[in-house]
Amino acid sequence: MELQAKPSKNIGIVGLGLIGGSLGLDLQKLGYTVYGITHREKTAAQARERKLAHFVSTDPSILKDCSIIFIALPLEQLINPSSSLINAIPENAVVTDVGSVKVPILKTWNKLHPRFVASHPMTGTEASGVHAGQHKLFKNKPWVVTPDKATDQQALKVIHQISLSLGCKWISADAQTHDEAVGLISHLPVLISAALLNTLSSDTNPSLYSLAKSIASSGFADTSRVGGGNPELGVSMAKFNKKNLIKSLLCYRHSLDLFEKYLLEENWNELDKILVSTNEVRQNFISKSTM
Amino acid sequence: MELQAKPSKNIGIVGLGLIGGSLGLDLQKLGYTVYGITHREKTAAQARERKLAHFVSTDPSILKDCSIIFIALPLEQLINPSSSLINAIPENAVVTDVGSVKVPILKTWNKLHPRFVASHPMTGTEASGVHAGQHKLFKNKPWVVTPDKATDQQALKVIHQISLSLGCKWISADAQTHDEAVGLISHLPVLISAALLNTLSSDTNPSLYSLAKSIASSGFADTSRVGGGNPELGVSMAKFNKKNLIKSLLCYRHSLDLFEKYLLEENWNELDKILVSTNEVRQNFISKSTM
Repeated sequence: MELQAKPSKNIGIVGLGLIGGSLGLDLQKLGYTVYGITHREKTAAQARERKLAHFVSTDPSILKDCSIIFIALPLEQLINPSSSLINAIPENAVVTDVGSVKVPILKTWNKLHPRFVASHPMTGTEASGVHAGQHKLFKNKPWVVTPDKATDQQALKVIHQISLSLGCKWISADAQTHDEAVGLISHLPVLISAALLNTLSSDTNPSLYSLAKSIASSGFADTSRVGGGNPELGVSMAKFNKKNLIKSLLCYRHSLDLFEKYLLEENWNELDKILVSTNEVRQNFISKSTM
Repeated sequence: MELQAKPSKNIGIVGLGLIGGSLGLDLQKLGYTVYGITHREKTAAQARERKLAHFVSTDPSILKDCSIIFIALPLEQLINPSSSLINAIPENAVVTDVGSVKVPILKTWNKLHPRFVASHPMTGTEASGVHAGQHKLFKNKPWVVTPDKATDQQALKVIHQISLSLGCKWISADAQTHDEAVGLISHLPVLISAALLNTLSSDTNPSLYSLAKSIASSGFADTSRVGGGNPELGVSMAKFNKKNLIKSLLCYRHSLDLFEKYLLEENWNELDKILVSTNEVRQNFISKSTM
């Protein structure tokens, strides 16, 4: 008999930061009973105050009646989960995560739990922590899953149904391609943007720095935004997507070499060609609905 | 007798694109009589329809009664102005420009006109052309001037007064420092952002490209925005600010080398330090009022 993709009414969320907290708010609205786990009692109290879940505890044993569990922890803790968490997960629960790198997470969790589905809901704001969660964070955003041979197809259906009810666009990809793509469009931008900020602070004399600061406008603000973000996130993406990021960085340096060459040669014709092409690539690449 | 900084009622604007058109709209509102020049008759008709100036012509001789003239042309034409334009400028008029590179413009215009003031109003949108001009484009934005020994102080006062009446923040700097600063915070971002787009299009297999496209989100959109902009602008800034841009690019590559080194060495501690510092630099650098 095929399991119906109708979820149980009890959902657990481990971690109530931006993603976990937002899940809690939306899932309660969808009629689920939500059990939230935080690391510290102080955060639990704040999460209760913000009504991020019906029940909030620092004790993972409250997950015992949950049939679906979202692990919304930072990458480091997703890849090295605590044994108290592992032990608290009911054997038959569908478990998913929200991490931005999938190969190492699949490697860990396929061994730990038979009904694990690797997820990467691609959404966010600049906020983080227990105060960051908000309603409708997932609406019209991609919910990427990276199933492999070991993935339980019925568990996958359960996550599919929930992601649709959150308003997400469902995208299935293999984990390696996902990690490469994320390296290119998400992790590489963090590095190149951070390198811009680092250039300013390390190679600039005071009067130049001061003038640059007073005239920096929206172009600079946009290009430097992701490089000025959460350092912990930046380090973990580099750590867990190192190979792909190094590969992307190498390709990026080839592009930069080309620009430098055209500048040095005063080859304005070729520079124009490449800028016409990047103008087209961006128009083709940026779908308004994901902004 | 000192000339009063009170402007005449007749202002000329050469070029009615984003900057020139926006100047036309605001200056008419401030009570000036505005004479606009376009290159082609078709554009002149569109400018008349949009009421970008009281009088619009393709013939520079309509500038004959203007005592203040804004040359709002692309860099190429600012640095190599047509003789018909030069001949049409009344000898006693205060003339200013809007170009983003100041050393070559000062070099050209100090020889051409005794009452030239080098200006760089730092504002904009993604739009360009005769349909781009809009009201209040200058409000709270920097109006940078780069006077030198040859600059007429009374002409400078006239431009100062107008920039204040447009709502600008007046910033005076020397032309060389201005061009270096703009190289760092405006022209370098265009190159590093374009190099990101070029990396995607040149080094990516079709399935990776397709996935990357479907999951690219606001971080990618922001980092790639200026690199996907107007190619003509990109080429002209490279052409006329080449030396500073090459210098900035060299410094930038040092930063990128550092990130690559930490990745290869798995030196997460140093990577964290640098990302903590770029997070602070950005908070310090981005003034909300210029966004």
